[in-house]
Amino acid sequence: MHSFEELSAAFADRFSQRHFPDQPASLYEPGAYFLSMGGKRIRPVLCVMGNELFAPIEDDAWQLAIAIELFHNFTLIHDDIMDRAPLRRGMTTVHEKYGAPTAILSGDVMMVASYAAIAKIGSPHIRRILHLYNQAASHVCEGQQLDMDFERRSDVRMEEYLHMIGLKTSVLLAASLQIGAILGGAGLGNQDKIYQFGKNLGLAFQIQDDYLDCYGDTAKVGKKAGGDILADKKTFLLVKTLEVATDAQRRRILELETAPADEKIAGMLDLFRACGVDAWVRELKEDYRRAAYQCLEDIAVLSSRKGPLRQLTDFLLQREF
Amino acid sequence: MHSFEELSAAFADRFSQRHFPDQPASLYEPGAYFLSMGGKRIRPVLCVMGNELFAPIEDDAWQLAIAIELFHNFTLIHDDIMDRAPLRRGMTTVHEKYGAPTAILSGDVMMVASYAAIAKIGSPHIRRILHLYNQAASHVCEGQQLDMDFERRSDVRMEEYLHMIGLKTSVLLAASLQIGAILGGAGLGNQDKIYQFGKNLGLAFQIQDDYLDCYGDTAKVGKKAGGDILADKKTFLLVKTLEVATDAQRRRILELETAPADEKIAGMLDLFRACGVDAWVRELKEDYRRAAYQCLEDIAVLSSRKGPLRQLTDFLLQREF
Repeated sequence: MHSFEELSAAFADRFSQRHFPDQPASLYEPGAYFLSMGGKRIRPVLCVMGNELFAPIEDDAWQLAIAIELFHNFTLIHDDIMDRAPLRRGMTTVHEKYGAPTAILSGDVMMVASYAAIAKIGSPHIRRILHLYNQAASHVCEGQQLDMDFERRSDVRMEEYLHMIGLKTSVLLAASLQIGAILGGAGLGNQDKIYQFGKNLGLAFQIQDDYLDCYGDTAKVGKKAGGDILADKKTFLLVKTLEVATDAQRRRILELETAPADEKIAGMLDLFRACGVDAWVRELKEDYRRAAYQCLEDIAVLSSRKGPLRQLTDFLLQREF
Repeated sequence: MHSFEELSAAFADRFSQRHFPDQPASLYEPGAYFLSMGGKRIRPVLCVMGNELFAPIEDDAWQLAIAIELFHNFTLIHDDIMDRAPLRRGMTTVHEKYGAPTAILSGDVMMVASYAAIAKIGSPHIRRILHLYNQAASHVCEGQQLDMDFERRSDVRMEEYLHMIGLKTSVLLAASLQIGAILGGAGLGNQDKIYQFGKNLGLAFQIQDDYLDCYGDTAKVGKKAGGDILADKKTFLLVKTLEVATDAQRRRILELETAPADEKIAGMLDLFRACGVDAWVRELKEDYRRAAYQCLEDIAVLSSRKGPLRQLTDFLLQREF
C-alpha cells in the first residue's frame, strides 16, 4: 500500500510528460501553460487509491488518472471563462492571456486528450469505465450550469444547493475512486460504497472550504478571510442564512451588498452568527465526514488496506478551524 | 445497398430521439434547440455508407453515426461563439439566445453525449474506433484554431490554407467513412483508401463552396453572391489572389476593404479574374474531385457496391457553375 504522498509524487512524475503535439502552438501552448500551474492532483490519486484498495496498481490506473486530471483541468479552463476569472492559483487565466476563443478551443482539445488517454487502456471493462466517466462528466457540466443559475437567484434551497455542489465537485471525486475500484476488481457493492465515500468526502470538503473562507486563520488558509462574501458568492453559509433569516436580517443583507469591504465582511459574519449558521455549517460538515468514514468502513476489504484513504480523509477534512 | 436518401431518412428517424435528460433544462434545452435546426447530416450517413460498402449495416454504425453528428454539432455551437455569429441556418445561434457561458457548457455536454454514444457500441474494435475518433476530433480543433490564426494574417500560403481546411472540414468526413469501414471489416489498405476518398471529397466540396459564394447562381445557391467577400473571409480565391497579386493589385485590395458593398464585390471579382484565380480554383476542385474518384475506384470491393458513394459524390460535387 502507498500513501497519498507517494502516489501523488508518482503521478506528478507521469503527468509531467507532454500531453499535446507541438503544432499548432497557438492551440496547444495555452493548455500546456494551464497544466503547468499545478494543482493538488487529488482526483487522479483517488483513482489509483481506489485501485490499490482492492488489488495491486494496474498500469491502466495511471492512464485513467491522467485522463481524469486532464478532464478536471479542461473544466477549470472553461469555468474561468464563464466566471470571468482573471486569476487562478495566482496566475493569469487562459482566456485572459490568450483570449476567450482560444480558451474555449484549448479546453475542448484537452477534453479530447482526456478521452485519448482512456482509449489507451487495456482493461476489458473499458465500456463500463467509459460509461461511468461520461456520466460523471455530464454531471460536472450540470453542476456548473446550476451554479450559474443559482447566482441569479436569492431563493435557493439548501437541498438544491447540496445537489448542485454534489454534481459540480463531488461526483468526479466519487467516479475517480469507483473507476479505480473497477480496475481493482471490486464487486458492485464495494463499488457503490467507494462511490458514496467519495461523494460524502467531496461535500464535507466543500462545506469546510466555504467555512474556512469566512473563519479560517489567514496564515494557515493562505488567503484573506471573507473573499466569498466580497464576491457575493453563494456558499453554504449564505444559502442557509437566506433560508432562515428574518425580514429585518434580509434587509440588512441587501444593505451590506454595497457596504465597504471590511464593514461588509464583519456585517455578514455577524449575521451568520446571529442566524446560528456558523455552528450549523460545522455540524453539516461533521455529518458528511462521518458518513464518508462509515462508507469507507463498510467496504468489504481488510481494514489494513484502508489506511491510505483514512489518512487522506483526515488530511483533507481535519484542517484547523 | 441503400442510397444516400434512404440512409439519410433512416438516420433522421434515429437522430430524432432525445439525446439529453430533462434537467437541468437551462443546460440541455439549448443543445436540443440547436439540434432542432437540422442540417444535411452528411457525416453520419458517410459512417453508415462506409460500413455498407463492405458488409451489411451493423447497429453500431447507427450508434457511431449519432456520436459523429453530436460531435459535429458541438463544434458548430462553439465555432459560432468564437466567430460571434448571430445566425446559423437562419436561426439565432445558441450564444446569442442563451449567452456565451451556457453556449460553452451546452457544447461541452454535447461532446460528452457524443462519447456516451460511443460507449454503447458492442464492436470489439472499440479502442481503435475511439482512437480514430479522438484523432479526428483533435484535428477539427486544430483546424479551427488555424482558421482563427489565419484571419489575422495576409501572407497565408495556399499549402497552409489547404492543410487548415483539411483539418477543419475534411478529416471528420474521412474518419466517419473509415470508422464505418472498420465496422464493415475492411482491411487496413481499404481503410486508408476510404479515408483518402473522404479527405479529397471534403476538400473538393469546400473549394466548390468558396467558388459558389462568388460565382453561384443566387437562385440555385440560395444566398446572395459575395457574402465571403463582404465579410473579408479568407477563401481559396482570396488566399490564391494574395499569393499571385502584383503590388498594384494588393493596393487595390486594401482600397476595396472599405468600399461600399456592391463596389467591393464587383472589384474583388474583377481582381480574381485578372489574377486568373477563378479558373485556377475550378481546376483545383477538379483535381480533388478526380483524386476522390480514384481513391473510391481503388477500394478493393465489387464495383457495384460503390454505387451509393459515387452517387453521393456526384450530388455533392456537380453543383452547377
